[in-house]
Amino acid sequence: MCLMVKCALCVHLIYSDIVQRSREELKAIRETNPGLKPTLAIIQVCLCVIEEILRLNEDSRVYGIFLHLPQSFLSKSVRNAIKPQKDVDGIYFFCNTPLDAPLIGKMAVLVGVEGPLKATLQFLLQNNGMMVQTCQWSSKHICHFEVFTEMFVAVVICQHVVRSNRRWIQEQQYQPWRLRPLKLQPLSPVPSDIEISRAQTPKPISQLAQEVGLLPEELEAYGNTKAKVHLSLLNRLQHQPNGKYVLVAGITPTPLGEGKSTVTIGLVQALSAHLKLNSFACLRQPSQGPTFGVKGGAAGGGYAQVIPMEEFNLHLTGDIHAITAANNLVAAAIDARILHEATQSDKALYSRLVPSVNGVRCFSPIQMARLQRLGINKSDPSDLTPEEVRAFVRLDLDPEKVTWQRVIDTNDRFLRKITVGQANTEKGHARQTQFDIAVASEIMAILALTDGLADMRARLGRMVVGSSRNGQPITADDLGVTGALAVLMKDAIKPTLMQTLEGTPVFVHAGPFANIAHGNSSVLADKLALKLVGEEGFVVTEAGFGADIGMEKFFNIKCRTSGLKPDVVVLVATVRALKMHGGGPNVTAGVPLPKEYINENLQLVTDGCSNLKKHIQIAHLFGVPVVVALNAFKTDTQAEIDLVCRIAEASGASAAVQCHHWSRGGRGSVELAQAVKEVASQKNHFQFLYNLQDSIVEKIRTIAQKVYGADDIELSPEAQAKIDYYNQQGFGALPICMAKTHLSLSHMPEKKGVPTGFILPIRDIRASIGAGFIYPLVGTMSTMPGLPTRPCFYDIDLDPVTEEIKGLF
Amino acid sequence: MCLMVKCALCVHLIYSDIVQRSREELKAIRETNPGLKPTLAIIQVCLCVIEEILRLNEDSRVYGIFLHLPQSFLSKSVRNAIKPQKDVDGIYFFCNTPLDAPLIGKMAVLVGVEGPLKATLQFLLQNNGMMVQTCQWSSKHICHFEVFTEMFVAVVICQHVVRSNRRWIQEQQYQPWRLRPLKLQPLSPVPSDIEISRAQTPKPISQLAQEVGLLPEELEAYGNTKAKVHLSLLNRLQHQPNGKYVLVAGITPTPLGEGKSTVTIGLVQALSAHLKLNSFACLRQPSQGPTFGVKGGAAGGGYAQVIPMEEFNLHLTGDIHAITAANNLVAAAIDARILHEATQSDKALYSRLVPSVNGVRCFSPIQMARLQRLGINKSDPSDLTPEEVRAFVRLDLDPEKVTWQRVIDTNDRFLRKITVGQANTEKGHARQTQFDIAVASEIMAILALTDGLADMRARLGRMVVGSSRNGQPITADDLGVTGALAVLMKDAIKPTLMQTLEGTPVFVHAGPFANIAHGNSSVLADKLALKLVGEEGFVVTEAGFGADIGMEKFFNIKCRTSGLKPDVVVLVATVRALKMHGGGPNVTAGVPLPKEYINENLQLVTDGCSNLKKHIQIAHLFGVPVVVALNAFKTDTQAEIDLVCRIAEASGASAAVQCHHWSRGGRGSVELAQAVKEVASQKNHFQFLYNLQDSIVEKIRTIAQKVYGADDIELSPEAQAKIDYYNQQGFGALPICMAKTHLSLSHMPEKKGVPTGFILPIRDIRASIGAGFIYPLVGTMSTMPGLPTRPCFYDIDLDPVTEEIKGLF
Repeated sequence: MCLMVKCALCVHLIYSDIVQRSREELKAIRETNPGLKPTLAIIQVCLCVIEEILRLNEDSRVYGIFLHLPQSFLSKSVRNAIKPQKDVDGIYFFCNTPLDAPLIGKMAVLVGVEGPLKATLQFLLQNNGMMVQTCQWSSKHICHFEVFTEMFVAVVICQHVVRSNRRWIQEQQYQPWRLRPLKLQPLSPVPSDIEISRAQTPKPISQLAQEVGLLPEELEAYGNTKAKVHLSLLNRLQHQPNGKYVLVAGITPTPLGEGKSTVTIGLVQALSAHLKLNSFACLRQPSQGPTFGVKGGAAGGGYAQVIPMEEFNLHLTGDIHAITAANNLVAAAIDARILHEATQSDKALYSRLVPSVNGVRCFSPIQMARLQRLGINKSDPSDLTPEEVRAFVRLDLDPEKVTWQRVIDTNDRFLRKITVGQANTEKGHARQTQFDIAVASEIMAILALTDGLADMRARLGRMVVGSSRNGQPITADDLGVTGALAVLMKDAIKPTLMQTLEGTPVFVHAGPFANIAHGNSSVLADKLALKLVGEEGFVVTEAGFGADIGMEKFFNIKCRTSGLKPDVVVLVATVRALKMHGGGPNVTAGVPLPKEYINENLQLVTDGCSNLKKHIQIAHLFGVPVVVALNAFKTDTQAEIDLVCRIAEASGASAAVQCHHWSRGGRGSVELAQAVKEVASQKNHFQFLYNLQDSIVEKIRTIAQKVYGADDIELSPEAQAKIDYYNQQGFGALPICMAKTHLSLSHMPEKKGVPTGFILPIRDIRASIGAGFIYPLVGTMSTMPGLPTRPCFYDIDLDPVTEEIKGLF
Repeated sequence: MCLMVKCALCVHLIYSDIVQRSREELKAIRETNPGLKPTLAIIQVCLCVIEEILRLNEDSRVYGIFLHLPQSFLSKSVRNAIKPQKDVDGIYFFCNTPLDAPLIGKMAVLVGVEGPLKATLQFLLQNNGMMVQTCQWSSKHICHFEVFTEMFVAVVICQHVVRSNRRWIQEQQYQPWRLRPLKLQPLSPVPSDIEISRAQTPKPISQLAQEVGLLPEELEAYGNTKAKVHLSLLNRLQHQPNGKYVLVAGITPTPLGEGKSTVTIGLVQALSAHLKLNSFACLRQPSQGPTFGVKGGAAGGGYAQVIPMEEFNLHLTGDIHAITAANNLVAAAIDARILHEATQSDKALYSRLVPSVNGVRCFSPIQMARLQRLGINKSDPSDLTPEEVRAFVRLDLDPEKVTWQRVIDTNDRFLRKITVGQANTEKGHARQTQFDIAVASEIMAILALTDGLADMRARLGRMVVGSSRNGQPITADDLGVTGALAVLMKDAIKPTLMQTLEGTPVFVHAGPFANIAHGNSSVLADKLALKLVGEEGFVVTEAGFGADIGMEKFFNIKCRTSGLKPDVVVLVATVRALKMHGGGPNVTAGVPLPKEYINENLQLVTDGCSNLKKHIQIAHLFGVPVVVALNAFKTDTQAEIDLVCRIAEASGASAAVQCHHWSRGGRGSVELAQAVKEVASQKNHFQFLYNLQDSIVEKIRTIAQKVYGADDIELSPEAQAKIDYYNQQGFGALPICMAKTHLSLSHMPEKKGVPTGFILPIRDIRASIGAGFIYPLVGTMSTMPGLPTRPCFYDIDLDPVTEEIKGLF
């Protein structure tokens, strides 16, 4: 590295050569790495050099720092602040590298070296036992000393620039995983979920992040077990091929539970910790409401869980709280606007909406956008005609046609129908409305479907909140609230990294309602994970409810939006649930399970497999192969298990295996993982079920007939009117998000198995324009759960000394 | 350190000596450090040694780790995992320390050394160029080698135990600050708040934490600029004397603004960054609602701000969201319980509330607590008589007497009065109620007053939510929800660390409403900060509104609860606000300021100083000295400034100085900081204004007469009835939290200056039993702000590329 020369003249030639070579190398590097923007930070005299260096150290867009500083500024603490990898001057290098030759006692002359490097060169040479003199270029007779000229310095810098580029490129590239799984020692009998979760110490989240190739600057810790991951990762790994994409779906849900989340987590534990294949689970964030109601946690269960499960089930990193805040800001803006329009003249409204600030009136950008939508191409507020002022200031929202609801993340049944605005201050503008559970907010659906900040901001602005008295849709942008919503959601857009019981990575992000919305976790988490696992890795994501709901929407809505193609569907079933589909008796909480579910009953299993078969066929409609995961219960008999697997394979499943992650962790699902691996390696022919350009009615009919098995659909007059309205507004080409009961393939919750010979009634049709889908209502969907007589909060407590949580399950 | 000996026998004596000395040292250490609990972690064979070591490394209660492992487990990664400071075996020491003597080529014999240390000793000695043999104690003739016996090992361990204890004690002790302030270069004219905030790069919050003596394990980062601080700090520094305690209060607020937060932040910037005195600001977390309404940010302003101001003003670390969730869980539980009691028989309720699980029925702990309150000393559910069952299952809440409201952190005026329960599923149990802004929740008041998890849990359980039809108070504990509330609030109880523009520390924690509650930030944040700043340091905390509201409650409620004694009051005034109190004209937003506020007007200033004088007198009632901080505006003239300072000092203020932090940062308030420092060093005679044992009426009268200057009070019949009720319930000895307008010393908002000759009407009286105060209502308090015609969200936006926020101020 360090050139020792006797004569300044010949050196010049060698140096020129190196500089030329460096230039060429740089050129080559840049040509083969178009993503490399040569961002070199040059720090000149400023008061807070160290702070600036520390900031630039962490800025991944800056690949090198060049300190253009007078010598007096180059204190030891400044020299030590700079990250070696970003050190273009070579300061760190000079200060920490011994020279090649033994120089003790020799004399060095620094020729023409000034400014930033003089101090460090001096330090370096003296450290190596040399005496140092400095002089200008004009000095003669210096050939008998070791000479360090400004050319030498320039050459070192050239080489450092090349090295910085290389280092930056290498750091930005895909990093192979160095995952260190956590060991599991499953106990028998299996303890409660929270006991299992608490018995395992999670890795520090920063360690897990490093193991899966995240850069420190891509991580924002929230305590030691959760971290948000920056979306810049997508840009950094844009050329990295995606891994395999696995969807976990279920048969038609029964009160006995099938364990989709548990399978999802057990599968990644098996893939990552046992087959040593990179894998990520992508899960929905659960609503906090049901955690205190009847449902309990949603972090998986037994030895297949996300830990710490209480963090997963409670506030997490605040995404649902942010959605609640954003959603309710829109609601408050709607009612306040109706009131203000009702109580003020056009002129008063205009002077308040476009006030004079220091004698100047001007439209804000969001007001200019509204003017453009109104076809008013003016930018000076004084230019508007009275008609234009009126059009601008009056959204003229019809209180009867406000479709936007308030939300809350609590199971509060008394908010299902309410009257607001009854105080005197609201001057008689009371109206009836409702609260939904927070995850039912359209903003949650947007979070799950967006591909970045700009897109999310645009979608938030497009959300239709109601219509004007003359039938025009009114949007969040018309209310002026788009930017504020984006600000409230700026952190929520980043997926949250957590880990399984075996220390493998999990993204938790978004959790839209699975009937009025699409019930799938976020596109962004899946995309990040698909890059991180690498080409041979696996991303396992989960769809809400049965294949007729979550999976159909996963394919037709989520995959259509994201452009991602699924490789395998894992279809979860249990012997007990299949028995219920086969005609087994109903079950009641608190009453002992009927004997049909405890003793072997091959007839019920055989009959119930009709439901499983139908779900396999649904997946095949989309051209995706199916692996059936039979979630083991201790009451299952070998004959029952064999029967299900045989029927599943006869029905076209590529494989069908029993899995035991609940009692044994990932080791219990290795067979499932192997099946998934094998099936994923086969080519498939993924296709959508309908084209967006089909009419709304055709799209609904296709889903009803092909997926649900209906003979036909029947539209109510309201539904027909809405279809006409949406077509007229230009919303006809949106995908369809059916709002149907999850308890049956049909619209009749009590019909188990595979109902046939029914006509699907479409009661009404709504639209989430921001999220980007039309949702037909089949029957009545409750969007606000209630609390039972004895909610689970009776058992939940906190030990004030150990801070341990009790009673969550 | 390392003993080199020739003969095993004599060594024994020397070793015994060392062991004895170590034992005595340990004894002495423990005697002088009663807080030291000798928690030595001994790791035996387990599958996840490294994870266990990593966990123990971070556990501050464990001062040393002893690896009792077979040699095969002592891999390099295990050896490297252990933190040197916790390494009782001396593994790290052995592996990294060169021996004292030159040993190259010599032969070492390990005598009787087995298990954990054999491998490392071997490694150490070979690393030092020795050849190593091992043998048992029985071996003879080894005196010609360097001998490392098990005694030697025991001695090393003894010494390491002593060292670990010392290290642990030292680490646990108070650490002097090594604060590195951020440099400010104020611009003129002063840019907008968000521009100033964005131009300054905050220090990584972990760095700031280290600078002020926090241990890494006491910190939970939330991103890079915010962190929660563990309450265990209070225990660690329990013997550390508190710093000085400074309260910032204001004169009676005017629409012109006085700038209390700005003074609070300017003062700590001056103290820490310029006078080099440790100081902490303790601020309230602002409600997010007004951020999007009219108020804008609350992080200070100009060059005295908390940064990043957008983080401060938005979700922060989710505390208000947690309060909202907890508050609304109580509300949902109330209405659901009323419905369930109304629609079920005693028997049905009982069998649901105490269900049979696997054939066994038992009461949960929270149900046992209710039984005890009811005087039923039974623990077997089958033992209760029908009357006892009835008493147990029926809270019999009177829907008309539910005092608990729902909350939301949005300015939503349409929720001021609502009717809930109008859906068919609620079977006609509609009732009228309201939403308050989230910070008005009693849970916020509890958060601000609690001293730890156990106390918070107890207070949450004591909250009265309404009364039964026969007049008994019904609590959150009766609803069974106490534990769930504590779980929801377990993170919110930890204060959030942020920093000022000059990189000095700030705690943000709790922000109860200043009229229906006590309007002060948390006791816990103040306590943590008082320990951290050290005996010579300063904690500056802020009270809401004028001295008649925030300060009176700070003394009588907050200090009474915390036991802390204030040293100085900083009373904030501006020339402009004083002019308004002196009779200056009203001001209207958007209209140019009247000339009285722009031109010199000594008469208005003189008259307005009556208000300032009154506030000084109020502080003196409590025996606390006052420093007047005159917040500079560019329209102030020197004559006006001098006049205010003269009157202030003549009125008994210990000092009165002008301050310029808004335009110049801490440097602009050095004079104020010096005055505060000087006055704080004087002894004061702090006292409460009333005794808790005084009657409720007496306590109210004392405040009305002595603080507000009323002639007397007048109780409405409702108020009198409530007083009787509270006395009967045993709530008579609680402090008083007046709910009065902040715009006047009287109950009449339009009366500026110092109103006299009035009788204070007490309209009604309420109680926050969990928070621990009675609050008389003087006039009508709005607990839900609204949105104006043009809310500030019109200007707020997010740049999707840079992620920068625009338009917050």
